[in-house]
Amino acid sequence: MYAMKQKDVTAALDLDDKKSIAAQWFRNLRDSICAEFEAIENEVTAHECASMPAGTFQKKQWSRTTEDGSDGGGGEMSVMKGRVFEKVGVNISTVHGRFSKDFAEKIPGASDNDGHFWASGLSLVAHHRNPHVPPAHMNTRMIVTSKEWFGGGGDLNPIFECDEDTGFFHDGFKACCDRHDPEYYPKYKDWADEYFFIKHRNESRGIGGIFYDYLDSGSWEADFAFTKDVGETFRDTYCALVRKSMNRQWTEEDREAQLLKRGRYVEFNLVYDRGTVFGLQTGGNVEAILMSLPPVAKWD
Amino acid sequence: MYAMKQKDVTAALDLDDKKSIAAQWFRNLRDSICAEFEAIENEVTAHECASMPAGTFQKKQWSRTTEDGSDGGGGEMSVMKGRVFEKVGVNISTVHGRFSKDFAEKIPGASDNDGHFWASGLSLVAHHRNPHVPPAHMNTRMIVTSKEWFGGGGDLNPIFECDEDTGFFHDGFKACCDRHDPEYYPKYKDWADEYFFIKHRNESRGIGGIFYDYLDSGSWEADFAFTKDVGETFRDTYCALVRKSMNRQWTEEDREAQLLKRGRYVEFNLVYDRGTVFGLQTGGNVEAILMSLPPVAKWD
Repeated sequence: MYAMKQKDVTAALDLDDKKSIAAQWFRNLRDSICAEFEAIENEVTAHECASMPAGTFQKKQWSRTTEDGSDGGGGEMSVMKGRVFEKVGVNISTVHGRFSKDFAEKIPGASDNDGHFWASGLSLVAHHRNPHVPPAHMNTRMIVTSKEWFGGGGDLNPIFECDEDTGFFHDGFKACCDRHDPEYYPKYKDWADEYFFIKHRNESRGIGGIFYDYLDSGSWEADFAFTKDVGETFRDTYCALVRKSMNRQWTEEDREAQLLKRGRYVEFNLVYDRGTVFGLQTGGNVEAILMSLPPVAKWD
Repeated sequence: MYAMKQKDVTAALDLDDKKSIAAQWFRNLRDSICAEFEAIENEVTAHECASMPAGTFQKKQWSRTTEDGSDGGGGEMSVMKGRVFEKVGVNISTVHGRFSKDFAEKIPGASDNDGHFWASGLSLVAHHRNPHVPPAHMNTRMIVTSKEWFGGGGDLNPIFECDEDTGFFHDGFKACCDRHDPEYYPKYKDWADEYFFIKHRNESRGIGGIFYDYLDSGSWEADFAFTKDVGETFRDTYCALVRKSMNRQWTEEDREAQLLKRGRYVEFNLVYDRGTVFGLQTGGNVEAILMSLPPVAKWD
């Protein structure tokens, strides 16, 4: 055996390296999530879904031009309209450009960077045919202005709350957070409770999860490791939850309750969601931004 | 015959009189619109609608308490889920209180009135079962801060545009406007085109109509007369349009197109609609404010 000193590659990372590594990782996460979701599509055995063809993801790329006509990056939508997942989108994007002056004032480090920004991330929203399978949302992102940080989170939006599922979902995120910093879970759980709240209805959007933003601990490597763990934890936890309930029977009343719950989801996304506001403010791809909207929703 | 000088009653109106007269008139307009819509429900003869029971309006009152716990007025919702009108709401409200400091800065005359306001109005949104019957929206209102003014308008949102219907709808408003001021129609039509526009989709919400706000010509009587004419013109024009198309046959594809169009309507209402923002900002009744949302909507 040769004793070799391990090279600390990360200490040598410059900002461009970090951007490439993060953007590539969001793509890898997207691939692993889509593969799992397609596997789930093939596994369902009960009720009418089993007689439908299994869904596969359809990809669609988009590019973005900035206001002055130059390249502003772009993204790739992956949408599946399947027999378990009535509609699920797993979008990645890597964009750059300049914020409007007004918007720059709301984003840390943007005003003193003449509005210049770079952002890369993954965004996922899943709506199911079976009202017993909880819809979910997850997002992870790296953002650079004159500052740089990670943000992300995930939340579960069951139509019918189930303590066992709620516990399982939160336990997954708690274990994930605790692997990085014992202060993360309580802080990010509270942030999720505050963020995923439909103020005008005075009701939560779901049973929460975690939400974090502006994460810059001083170690990009540590923050990136946490963000990766959040993405993988969500994937594994959520796939287990979908598999657990996808073969349950449901009634017309269950479906009706699901469609009304989706109406609330639409209200949250169009009125409060940061990703939606960010996307629309930065001239993002509208189809990709509004991929989060359910295929069908009802209001009383 | 005795020669009697006609008493100019309106010159003697104080602000409280104006408020009462306007609020009562909005109620009367509501009654006449609901009566017409219920009559229409009884007239449909074709397709599956004719085998359903005719709808009737259900009324629901709500009251509003201000942040300091005092009386803040209230309103009355009238909602009908019928066989022609899949869901229609005709709401009236008369509210008063104080705007938040931030919101007061956006409303003429509110900041120098310590945020105090009074507002009364009628708001109507109609969604139909038959995709060939165009959905519509209408609103008229009187608002008082340290200033006082009228606002309102109406627009038509056909799933399938029809030049004849568009012409008829606009001709009605043009004739109405021209009875009061030849400058109104071109100005208020343009305002509607600008206002009823879904910026992030870069598409109009429908075929427009008229929109006006901050109308204070110097004569309350003239502005009120115009506002009354707008309400009555909308009622008469719209009822004619509903009757014209309600017995047409439609296909599953037509229904699908209708539900997707409704998705766009939801986007407009939750992202841009002034009445929605005003209502949510002033602690209005959420059920009444979001009455405008369709019973069911779809997204691609």
